Amino acid sequence: MRLKVKLLGIEAGGPLIVALNPKIVKSLDLEPADRVRIMGDKKYIVAVADVSAKISEDEIGLFDEVQKFLGAEDGQYLAIIPEEKPMSVFSIKKKLAGQRLSKDELYEIVTDIVDNRLTQVEIAFFVAAAYTRDFSIEETEYLARAIAESGEMLNLGTKPIADKHCIGGVPGNRTTMLVVPIVASTGVTIPKTSSRAITDPAGTADTMEVLAPVSLDFEKIREIVKKIKACMVWGGGLDMAPADDDIIKVEHPLSLDPTGILLASVMAKKYSVGATHVLIDIPYGPGTKCDLKRAKDLEKRFVAVGKNLGMIVKTIKTDGSQPIGNGIGPALEARDVLYVLMDDKKAPQDLKKKAIFMAGQLLELVGKAKRGKGAALAKKQLESGKTLEKMREIIKAQGGNPQIKPEQIKVGTDIETITAEKDGIVIAIDNEKIKRISKFLGAPNDKGAGMFLHKHVGDKVKFKEPIFTLYAESGRKLSDAIGFADSNNPFKIK
Amino acid sequence: MRLKVKLLGIEAGGPLIVALNPKIVKSLDLEPADRVRIMGDKKYIVAVADVSAKISEDEIGLFDEVQKFLGAEDGQYLAIIPEEKPMSVFSIKKKLAGQRLSKDELYEIVTDIVDNRLTQVEIAFFVAAAYTRDFSIEETEYLARAIAESGEMLNLGTKPIADKHCIGGVPGNRTTMLVVPIVASTGVTIPKTSSRAITDPAGTADTMEVLAPVSLDFEKIREIVKKIKACMVWGGGLDMAPADDDIIKVEHPLSLDPTGILLASVMAKKYSVGATHVLIDIPYGPGTKCDLKRAKDLEKRFVAVGKNLGMIVKTIKTDGSQPIGNGIGPALEARDVLYVLMDDKKAPQDLKKKAIFMAGQLLELVGKAKRGKGAALAKKQLESGKTLEKMREIIKAQGGNPQIKPEQIKVGTDIETITAEKDGIVIAIDNEKIKRISKFLGAPNDKGAGMFLHKHVGDKVKFKEPIFTLYAESGRKLSDAIGFADSNNPFKIK
Repeated sequence: MRLKVKLLGIEAGGPLIVALNPKIVKSLDLEPADRVRIMGDKKYIVAVADVSAKISEDEIGLFDEVQKFLGAEDGQYLAIIPEEKPMSVFSIKKKLAGQRLSKDELYEIVTDIVDNRLTQVEIAFFVAAAYTRDFSIEETEYLARAIAESGEMLNLGTKPIADKHCIGGVPGNRTTMLVVPIVASTGVTIPKTSSRAITDPAGTADTMEVLAPVSLDFEKIREIVKKIKACMVWGGGLDMAPADDDIIKVEHPLSLDPTGILLASVMAKKYSVGATHVLIDIPYGPGTKCDLKRAKDLEKRFVAVGKNLGMIVKTIKTDGSQPIGNGIGPALEARDVLYVLMDDKKAPQDLKKKAIFMAGQLLELVGKAKRGKGAALAKKQLESGKTLEKMREIIKAQGGNPQIKPEQIKVGTDIETITAEKDGIVIAIDNEKIKRISKFLGAPNDKGAGMFLHKHVGDKVKFKEPIFTLYAESGRKLSDAIGFADSNNPFKIK
Repeated sequence: MRLKVKLLGIEAGGPLIVALNPKIVKSLDLEPADRVRIMGDKKYIVAVADVSAKISEDEIGLFDEVQKFLGAEDGQYLAIIPEEKPMSVFSIKKKLAGQRLSKDELYEIVTDIVDNRLTQVEIAFFVAAAYTRDFSIEETEYLARAIAESGEMLNLGTKPIADKHCIGGVPGNRTTMLVVPIVASTGVTIPKTSSRAITDPAGTADTMEVLAPVSLDFEKIREIVKKIKACMVWGGGLDMAPADDDIIKVEHPLSLDPTGILLASVMAKKYSVGATHVLIDIPYGPGTKCDLKRAKDLEKRFVAVGKNLGMIVKTIKTDGSQPIGNGIGPALEARDVLYVLMDDKKAPQDLKKKAIFMAGQLLELVGKAKRGKGAALAKKQLESGKTLEKMREIIKAQGGNPQIKPEQIKVGTDIETITAEKDGIVIAIDNEKIKRISKFLGAPNDKGAGMFLHKHVGDKVKFKEPIFTLYAESGRKLSDAIGFADSNNPFKIK
């Protein structure tokens, strides 16, 4: 069948879609989400056929993605024929039915996702399969390899390469920005890619961006890491593990975080940078992504998948029941990091302690410190100023101001401090409420927005003493946040 | 935020969607599939925000569905604000996690589906939940009620009302067109709504349409049923259980048929017509929808859900391992039905026997025949010509030609007969291959397309004797089917 191109002038938003008249759809015996092959001048493309009464019977409506690929023009005639579903659809069904997938089947699913050959509904069924069915260690390994190999690899050509990861969920937990310069200051290579926050007040990439640009290309990253052993960049700006983004997009509507995909996604990124020694931080407890049971399960799986990928993985379960550090939100967290690096008296001790512990673990893992001696080495590197020096090298290499002082970091100028209504002791701080309030304040998009916590769990408070301060970049956002915080105070005082 | 309307001039295909510039999406803190509320002059609507670089920063792109609802015009300014996800999304996640849903939660999901408040991805997660998690009898009952009440009900105001249903999967199995007139000929009310085929060569609605129009409205159906006790119409043309169509659309890409939704969907339709006594045919075996184990599970569930809905349900497990009747495809099946009704020597005996058995069961269930005497009554009604008379009343009432003869039914004129390559006995006929070949021939869209089976399992065949004949309405379709059948002969002869 030959049809006349009608350019729709709009993107379908990823999946390859064309629009056809209902009669044409029927005459081709197509059902919802069935596919057609469209023959261009030099190449063909397979797209999903959507039904539209706005397209006449001699036309085919092209969304931008298909138009660009074919280079088709308005009014041009193209031949179309029905096309079978890709095999990956059957593999997804197989997994949803609880069966094991082979390496080839998993690779095919990932390739089809990256090449936009699957619809969002089909990817949703894959996510649902991962959420409801167990992925074996081998399946997780293959999925991680497939996700990594669907994009570019860093290929530094050196060993060992250290890396760390935190599965997230705890506000203010910016250990990466301390662990990376500590470890690198001992001469160990640690090329760190991080994400931006989706539901949290800040991701490491958001916070690092306060100090230096984080959207660097692979060539620049290789150059920096070869020279100074470390970087802290935004992974999402790279063509690294691109399948991941397509999957996350579909996970978001239900805020799903299926174990199989979580593991594969994290390990794919470690594999992409060529990591040989990896420390994984698994915070657990109320308001985090897992309870102790899931944390233990994740630990076992991370180590096993890592082994299959040729990495030595060590996991730590940490207390995630309250925020780490004082600042929440990019600018306020960046200040905390600088205070720790400068050994300033304003440095939050919980953040410093956790960073030293983690850096110590990683130094031991990579063989830079003997067993039990890692933390001491990390502490020495931090307090001697060598870590600050390394951090300044990183900031400079990435294009930031290496001499920046904490006070120079701009925070929101619409400010409100919440004080205690009675004397007492802080017995709990609710992570979820901290995240919600910070979101209302504008974090992470407004870099200066966020919260400063004057108190932590166990601290004594007196009547009218400040508990937390809100920072926003607009009065409206501040008042929205105050309104929410009024009836959702994250601090429990007894 | 106020944005200028840009009409996109195309349907989104169901879900309510608007397109926004990436910067606007970011400034509103929206993630993929997040929603916005758009304030029109007199009413507002909640739609999912898609990202499009083709929309400028002061614009909002409206797909047809949103435009029509708001009555918005090109260039008009509309206020938009971010909107929370509907609660039904959280219920879907809850079910996917394996928890029970309440009546309210299930009703909310169905209402949101019908009102286009859920995206296809979100509905896909609901389908995946039904596929991977068990629905209790109560959950199935509530889902059935919600689906039924989402549309119009027949409300005949009479009792008893008989109904029958076959879960499908067996080609040629057109018992409905015999059971309905047999039962109605005894004075029992049986208003039958049927579906068109999606993957099969014909649905009852497709085959009945060969004899009479099947797209009738509720008013006409009520009028007919009050007068002659029966009808055989297309359910899909009515606003009956509309949620069903939206769900089926999402099931199709993976050809999923989750038990919870299957049960709720069938029972919703019975509930919509006010059925009090229902016979459910569950064919099982190779090439059908279930094996014996699933058939037994379905039986128990159908009876229990029916009881909760105030219906008396009887199930029968039947042999679905080979086609029923000789004709496959709308016209050829309609011929078979007429031959049986006319007690012609060409009548396929397997179809006749199954119809008598089923009608007998239903007559006993509804109290028209004593236990063990139903089949005899059904046989009498059929062979006495009373059933043919009732069928002619139905055909006439629906607007068809009541005097039509089997030979007057047009079948495809592109014909090819496949003969035996050796002497032997038919030991199996593959339903799946029969369906595929019939699809190639053009069934069910081409009414005259299909197959005629000269032999059934157990029949002796001689070298060069006809086994099956292919009918198509175009030479190309015939040759495509022959090509497929050449290497996929559905007949196994030994």
